[in-house]
Amino acid sequence: MRIDIITAVPELLESPLNQSIVKRARDKNLVEIVVHNLRDYTNDKHRRVDDYAFGFSAGMVLQIEPIDRAISALKAARKYDEVIYTSPDGVVFNQKIANTLSLCDNLIFLCGHYKGIDHRVREHLITKELSIGDFVLTGGELPAAIMVDAIVRLIPSAIGDEQSALSDSFQDNLLAPPVYTRPATYNGWTVPEILLSGHQAKIDEWNHEQAIERTKMLRPDLL
Amino acid sequence: MRIDIITAVPELLESPLNQSIVKRARDKNLVEIVVHNLRDYTNDKHRRVDDYAFGFSAGMVLQIEPIDRAISALKAARKYDEVIYTSPDGVVFNQKIANTLSLCDNLIFLCGHYKGIDHRVREHLITKELSIGDFVLTGGELPAAIMVDAIVRLIPSAIGDEQSALSDSFQDNLLAPPVYTRPATYNGWTVPEILLSGHQAKIDEWNHEQAIERTKMLRPDLL
Repeated sequence: MRIDIITAVPELLESPLNQSIVKRARDKNLVEIVVHNLRDYTNDKHRRVDDYAFGFSAGMVLQIEPIDRAISALKAARKYDEVIYTSPDGVVFNQKIANTLSLCDNLIFLCGHYKGIDHRVREHLITKELSIGDFVLTGGELPAAIMVDAIVRLIPSAIGDEQSALSDSFQDNLLAPPVYTRPATYNGWTVPEILLSGHQAKIDEWNHEQAIERTKMLRPDLL
Repeated sequence: MRIDIITAVPELLESPLNQSIVKRARDKNLVEIVVHNLRDYTNDKHRRVDDYAFGFSAGMVLQIEPIDRAISALKAARKYDEVIYTSPDGVVFNQKIANTLSLCDNLIFLCGHYKGIDHRVREHLITKELSIGDFVLTGGELPAAIMVDAIVRLIPSAIGDEQSALSDSFQDNLLAPPVYTRPATYNGWTVPEILLSGHQAKIDEWNHEQAIERTKMLRPDLL
């Protein structure tokens, strides 16, 4: 799998893409992630990629020209499954979308920044708009980093222990059961006895019941 | 405002907290952000802060002891409005929560990692659990970085142009209208004529209509 990320602020993506599971997946060649600085695709001598919004007194907008150049250069080299724009008015990203995208061969993520991108990009060059939630951020870089993390960890062998991914929240439409580790007693607070009993079948049953209980209580909409 | 972030993987937060608007807000002393390495709070000679989950065959869990020490050390120094844990089964973060949190004096964010944190932390040490959405991530670091970005940009003077924040999506329960910048024609694709007309009152009206139209079409639940 290959993921290309186009951004005017590539520095924002440095640590998210070079740590933990994403880093290991890249090291194992399970995924190739290439970050492109939008400024490399402009002819402007000051490397500017934004300009004033028509009809607004405030806020800068990313221009269509460098974005079109960047996307066209990538598309000339290979076929992309999706050209994704991270935007607060896109479809809200969830585990199902992560599962689907993890099966793709090549993805482009375009990150907005400042007030947004020229709307003609969204009309003509993008195939999918994804939102990370109902709130305003400085740019689409962190949302893209989060989506990439959610997608990459689903690639087989990306996480060391497949079992751990399968018991995560959402994969079975249930929240995860509570988890505990040593010490069994801390500050007078104890771990549920069943978890220390050694009866794995009963423990599994308890975990499943807890997952259902927590989902009923916190997120009944998932059931 | 002061924000303390406790994490087992502080490297993940480096670029998100040192770029763009968050960086400028820190430089202007509008917000103090302090990242704490959980490993500084353990007595373990290998600086381990995780251990096997009771009753599970796979996945590591962050231990209560270093987390308790880190939170206690911070609370001894000042009063915190909230101790927030970023978790997929928390309340879903949105602009309203960002607005509320932007008015706080001191916040702690605790980031989960691996399979999660010892549940006793959530029962006894946390005041609020916030989720970034219905998907599984490697850790709570990027969600915390996103929440911090959404909160910090609401602090007065954090973004250069207040007007720009006010016309962002969600602040008025409407999606933002489409934005355009130069050139007015690109590849045969033109900017809506009204935006080039110079009649600001008509432009404002058009923008408002477009915001309502887009919200009706894409997110009728917001109206």
